[in-house]
Amino acid sequence: MAIQVIAFDADDTLWVNEPFFREAEEKFCSLLEDFMPAHSILKELYHTEIGNLSLYGYGIKGFTLSMIETAMRISNQQMPISLVEKVIQIGQEMLEKPVDLLPGVEEVLQNLNGDYRMVLATKGDLVDQERKLRKSGLEKYFHHIEIMSEKKVEDFAKLIRHLDVKPEHFVMLGNSLKSDVLPVLELGGHAIHIPFHTTWIHEQVHHEVKHENFSSVENIRLAAELIRKM
Amino acid sequence: MAIQVIAFDADDTLWVNEPFFREAEEKFCSLLEDFMPAHSILKELYHTEIGNLSLYGYGIKGFTLSMIETAMRISNQQMPISLVEKVIQIGQEMLEKPVDLLPGVEEVLQNLNGDYRMVLATKGDLVDQERKLRKSGLEKYFHHIEIMSEKKVEDFAKLIRHLDVKPEHFVMLGNSLKSDVLPVLELGGHAIHIPFHTTWIHEQVHHEVKHENFSSVENIRLAAELIRKM
Repeated sequence: MAIQVIAFDADDTLWVNEPFFREAEEKFCSLLEDFMPAHSILKELYHTEIGNLSLYGYGIKGFTLSMIETAMRISNQQMPISLVEKVIQIGQEMLEKPVDLLPGVEEVLQNLNGDYRMVLATKGDLVDQERKLRKSGLEKYFHHIEIMSEKKVEDFAKLIRHLDVKPEHFVMLGNSLKSDVLPVLELGGHAIHIPFHTTWIHEQVHHEVKHENFSSVENIRLAAELIRKM
Repeated sequence: MAIQVIAFDADDTLWVNEPFFREAEEKFCSLLEDFMPAHSILKELYHTEIGNLSLYGYGIKGFTLSMIETAMRISNQQMPISLVEKVIQIGQEMLEKPVDLLPGVEEVLQNLNGDYRMVLATKGDLVDQERKLRKSGLEKYFHHIEIMSEKKVEDFAKLIRHLDVKPEHFVMLGNSLKSDVLPVLELGGHAIHIPFHTTWIHEQVHHEVKHENFSSVENIRLAAELIRKM
């Protein structure tokens, strides 16, 4: 069997995530509609987030701080202080969201369980990712959980070394070409892209990916079938 | 040799951390001195932090959000909006602090290097702890880095299992009796306490620790000497 280790991305691969950010952004825009039209607010927010990325990393707490910073800037510090409280509440509600598994996820993990070593490789905030994993009930399927601050080539190289597997026996499944696919292909591993309907601008890749170790499938069930044939 | 793995806590064991929080709290109190005396502000802030701990976890981003929440509450939403900006800045400055190694740290790691498997076991925010480790230049001494959302018995049990070492061959060094010492002793491991002059209230233990696998020493050099004799 060619594949020994299957690594799964979590957000928007196993469970819903990005739509909660879109929903939060909508609420944020409606709080500030007196100061600016929504599309400009979103641009400003994205600008703040990217500016803070090296300082805050990924995750809801940094996102909340970036919303507050953006609100102050675009309102020219004229917004009411109660608005800050509402923004903090948007963040706290995000942190309390239930975990919605995507269709087929549990069935596929059950099916592959025992035949492959399965690991979770997810980017984001430690506490929040652990909370989601606990709520998901999926922890038992994973041999190893890796919560990464970044998913670049060197981060995957470290993970693959740690798992003591050859890249050609490693496959990564995820919804982000940038974070789940390209770095793994560069290391000689396999990658299967399972697109999700919503992708954060920062994760978007604007060129076509073609590689002998790469496939793109519609859902996680098809990804599992593909792995069985590899 | 009895000890095979030495695990080091990071904040206030390898480098200065808690004093930056104390400094930030002082700045926060002086921003709000018109509303409340400092000692009451600190009580309110601690109350907010503990209330948010399960949601935010440990670290500077959650601390910043808790400062903002506290400021709004104690000013009865009467504070100027510019104050929020100042609080965010306090947090960002904390995230940009240089890493001050405690005396003897590098020398001790160099000395033990090769004779023991050394790991870093630290609690806190993923991005921030990785940043400090990178700045510290100490990464090369560690066989494994574990950034934990909590340091409870089950968290150390997982770590010890992962390292494939028997608890009696494992020693943890750290400044927190609650997080670095008690859970490790409970698992049958060894623990050495290296007190630091400042401890966050939440980490304080108000009873004496007595255990055959426990020692308390004044600095990391003495801890290393002790390990050599174990």
